[in-house]
Amino acid sequence: MKLATFEIQTPVGPVERIGAVAEATEAETTPAGEATLVDLTAAYGAALEAEGEPAPADLARAHVPPEMIAFLERGDRAIADAREALEYAAETDAERGPGGAKLRYEPGEYDLLAPLPRPNSLRDFMAIEEHVQNSMDGEIDDVWYELPVYYKGNADSVVAPGETIRWPDYSSIMDYELEIAAVIGKRGRDIPADEAEKYVVGYTVFNDFSARDIQGKEMEGRLGPAKGKDFANGLGPYFVPAEDIDVLEAPMTARVDGEVWSEGTVDEMYHSFPEIIEHVSQSETLHPGDVIGSGTVGGGCGLELGQWLEDGSTVELEIEGIGVLEHTVVE
Amino acid sequence: MKLATFEIQTPVGPVERIGAVAEATEAETTPAGEATLVDLTAAYGAALEAEGEPAPADLARAHVPPEMIAFLERGDRAIADAREALEYAAETDAERGPGGAKLRYEPGEYDLLAPLPRPNSLRDFMAIEEHVQNSMDGEIDDVWYELPVYYKGNADSVVAPGETIRWPDYSSIMDYELEIAAVIGKRGRDIPADEAEKYVVGYTVFNDFSARDIQGKEMEGRLGPAKGKDFANGLGPYFVPAEDIDVLEAPMTARVDGEVWSEGTVDEMYHSFPEIIEHVSQSETLHPGDVIGSGTVGGGCGLELGQWLEDGSTVELEIEGIGVLEHTVVE
Repeated sequence: MKLATFEIQTPVGPVERIGAVAEATEAETTPAGEATLVDLTAAYGAALEAEGEPAPADLARAHVPPEMIAFLERGDRAIADAREALEYAAETDAERGPGGAKLRYEPGEYDLLAPLPRPNSLRDFMAIEEHVQNSMDGEIDDVWYELPVYYKGNADSVVAPGETIRWPDYSSIMDYELEIAAVIGKRGRDIPADEAEKYVVGYTVFNDFSARDIQGKEMEGRLGPAKGKDFANGLGPYFVPAEDIDVLEAPMTARVDGEVWSEGTVDEMYHSFPEIIEHVSQSETLHPGDVIGSGTVGGGCGLELGQWLEDGSTVELEIEGIGVLEHTVVE
Repeated sequence: MKLATFEIQTPVGPVERIGAVAEATEAETTPAGEATLVDLTAAYGAALEAEGEPAPADLARAHVPPEMIAFLERGDRAIADAREALEYAAETDAERGPGGAKLRYEPGEYDLLAPLPRPNSLRDFMAIEEHVQNSMDGEIDDVWYELPVYYKGNADSVVAPGETIRWPDYSSIMDYELEIAAVIGKRGRDIPADEAEKYVVGYTVFNDFSARDIQGKEMEGRLGPAKGKDFANGLGPYFVPAEDIDVLEAPMTARVDGEVWSEGTVDEMYHSFPEIIEHVSQSETLHPGDVIGSGTVGGGCGLELGQWLEDGSTVELEIEGIGVLEHTVVE
């Protein structure tokens, strides 16, 4: 199942909904925004209505809230209800559910947003040795092996799949980073690594755009990157439940203007997602909608390759089983 | 005016409200939770009702929403409406407003929360030279003078005024930091320094608790502090509109178990709040409820003084015109 957040235009203004790629189109690799989406709240309501539920729309909004973080608050049950809704939509010929809500949206009828348009928080790690080695002139600090280091990103800077990114005026070195992000689906604190998997509801593609000139400069100030990272975070195009993807084996690819620049998997992670969750959750509560980036795969950014994005470059990050996350950068 | 977020117990569970310290008690220095609070939403409704408004409770919730970030979304108008509500409460003998809502809460009838129990974001700067000099063994990187460096904190770790803080098991060096925080009250992007003041709705006291052992270690990893800071952020007790405080001159004091450890003002800031806002807002949108910490005043933490908090220490941070923010730390 591939979950999405999307927006539709209505006479009373734009409305945000959550959806899933319709099973008929899921098998194909369709660029973001070119799949048929099932409106999960509407489809869940239609299934309830068919069962004779007298208040299907209200119940559907409680079971499958049309906003991703509220949806994730229900944990595993949200995913189970979403699957039921998707199955019902595949079986029925009906076009509309309770109150006349459309069950499906075809390409062109919606704007795809990031699956989490505004995550509760964004932590990004640097868990893959090859990337650190390539980025830090070969010298890796001992502490890197001891604990998973990370910075916190700007949760307000998430860009939609397909969105054109205006590069900040203060930077002229434009880079991408090929990462996978785990999405937290359950509130927890002091979580042991061997229970951490229960807290990850799924995964999405993460492009940690990086303005390398300012990033390098501000990191000398010892409080970590900020302006070098916080202008844009690519997440999407879909978010895939943990049980639907073998995250360590999923091939990851970055293409710039159609040419493959990076390939890898997060099987290379020195600190695993469960170890990261154990570390982060010590004396800190994790919340549904928290996003945890793996860090860049080895060779997964221009910095490691000695080449940069240019004005007008289109970057596609693909993770098999999730989809293609595409952005164009302009100066 | 001193604005607060507080919680009251009701038969249907706890309810969050916003309030202001009643004028009669404002002059005195009362420990947090020992002032009379005016319920601003209820008082605004009572004023509307007195004017003959037929739907005062609904209008009051729109003008003075009882949740601080929603309230701040109204910018300067929110502050003006809050002043009106507070004035009305001072003039009337009535105890209740529309729907029977209480206008005032006496000490013991409410729990004080941080004015922003969950800020939209938390950025903390290091803008005062003396602190940097004292903390970094006298060597200040050139970049520090060039741009305001900062890290992003954990907005989910804000503790209430008066709350006891359980120190993380992974740390044994317990420290506080004496700071003032600016609260953003208006959405903005690419804000020039000379217009930045319009975006600051007010100020509050900020205790940037710091676990120095882990902080030092993780900063070697070059992505900035995280576990060293993210377990607790003290904000409060009140939030004071910008026009009600001379922020650069306000005396700031830290006391540990009643003994003065630190004194200063943020007049010492090398990068001013307007310069910081110009820097941060480049290619990034600031939002109501974003919190910007000044950084520690010179001598404003144990690290600079060569002494640490102990199990059971009570830290009081006082900023004249705002109040006393008190916490006890326990191992």
